[in-house]
Amino acid sequence: MGKVYLMGAGPGDPELLTVKAVRILKSADVVLHDALVDNSVLAMVRPHALLIDVGKRVGDRRIAQEGINQMLVSFAASAATVVRLKGGDPLIFGRAAEEMAAMRRAGIDFEIVPGITAAVAASAQAQVPLTDRDGPSSVVFLTAQHAIGRGPKEIARFTAAESTLAIYMPNGRYGEIAKQVMAAGLLPQTPCLIVSNATRPNQKLYWTDVAGLQFMSQPATPAVLIIGTVARRRDEMISAASAFFAANKTEVETAHREL
Amino acid sequence: MGKVYLMGAGPGDPELLTVKAVRILKSADVVLHDALVDNSVLAMVRPHALLIDVGKRVGDRRIAQEGINQMLVSFAASAATVVRLKGGDPLIFGRAAEEMAAMRRAGIDFEIVPGITAAVAASAQAQVPLTDRDGPSSVVFLTAQHAIGRGPKEIARFTAAESTLAIYMPNGRYGEIAKQVMAAGLLPQTPCLIVSNATRPNQKLYWTDVAGLQFMSQPATPAVLIIGTVARRRDEMISAASAFFAANKTEVETAHREL
Repeated sequence: MGKVYLMGAGPGDPELLTVKAVRILKSADVVLHDALVDNSVLAMVRPHALLIDVGKRVGDRRIAQEGINQMLVSFAASAATVVRLKGGDPLIFGRAAEEMAAMRRAGIDFEIVPGITAAVAASAQAQVPLTDRDGPSSVVFLTAQHAIGRGPKEIARFTAAESTLAIYMPNGRYGEIAKQVMAAGLLPQTPCLIVSNATRPNQKLYWTDVAGLQFMSQPATPAVLIIGTVARRRDEMISAASAFFAANKTEVETAHREL
Repeated sequence: MGKVYLMGAGPGDPELLTVKAVRILKSADVVLHDALVDNSVLAMVRPHALLIDVGKRVGDRRIAQEGINQMLVSFAASAATVVRLKGGDPLIFGRAAEEMAAMRRAGIDFEIVPGITAAVAASAQAQVPLTDRDGPSSVVFLTAQHAIGRGPKEIARFTAAESTLAIYMPNGRYGEIAKQVMAAGLLPQTPCLIVSNATRPNQKLYWTDVAGLQFMSQPATPAVLIIGTVARRRDEMISAASAFFAANKTEVETAHREL
């Protein structure tokens, strides 16, 4: 009987995997990975290991979660080391609960290897804190679906608490999100930051505010949206940045990474 | 002029540093570290590098934040690579905002190297998700000081949103936290999990509920407290665990790590 590692691949940059993740990935017999995992991370897997993209569309449908659960159980029965590799961290919007339940039912030994989650990577790249001793003393991680689907009353709970909002999987629904957070009481000038492809060579940062968010063209995916006073810090500090602000108060910045 | 890296050392296990953090740490000329950073991480620093514990008490006082800011600026003027090493992630309860502001004022080049934050490490060790497709669709990171200091109305905002609560730095104030979350409307049987010294050889997990939280003896620090339905998952799945439940519904588990 093998062992399954539910592993976080981090945001994209292969150097942001943990040392432990790299060690286990290099010894894996089978790797089941999401579509979001960067090719440079997959390149670490041994040539003779079995690499399966479970985020891929087969025909016009994705592989169902139940199918992935079954694969994990089946491979663990024969292979020594099975890695379930997810973008970011497996326990934050990673659907790990369902996979863990399947493995517990089947009596399979598993371990979680944490990863750098998207909001943490995005804030690092933008050099904005998620919490601040003189500002928000909490941060909420939620999905756009949650932010939009549950209505302004739900979002108002977080904004009334002056929490930084880190919104995962905005998927281009910036207009709807802007509408909800304003209905929840946030001022139009509340700072916003979108980081797309954080830590990847094609990373972009979009500095805007809730008013500007409504008029966003579609940044590339994957992206994370950070809303709150923390997102203001950087352009307050770097006065030169204001020159780049467009009519809708959006500044786009392309990554300059040392590769 | 040198460069400063505001770097996350992760929860304790040196294998949970990112590959990037290890590379930079091994080339550092000066490392200013917090008291929470594990000795096994500090052992990676080159023998001739300057290692300063800025979390240390000097006499009966800690070094003030302003003093640390000044040290960062001074060392960056002479040393090539200066690392400011913090437990967990620097942008989540890491006071990075103040250090970044100091470096911006002084015109010093800096970069953030993210780390695995305590709540993420704790949930990985306990194998409980922080979000769940069939349960809480958001997670709030806050400090015990926030949870207690701002009163039950503030906490009620998060609990009404059915958010998982990840409470940092509980510092033994479990009774007060239990009182606040019950006043905020959480049921006494809401599951709780405390992870002390996550990923370290002396790690302990305490499975309890809000009612049991009131009677907690003092787990070692550092610790993280996770409150919400996600913390129930594990003992529901592992029925054997129930045998260990004590009168106050607290189960203590000691780490079995392969070192």
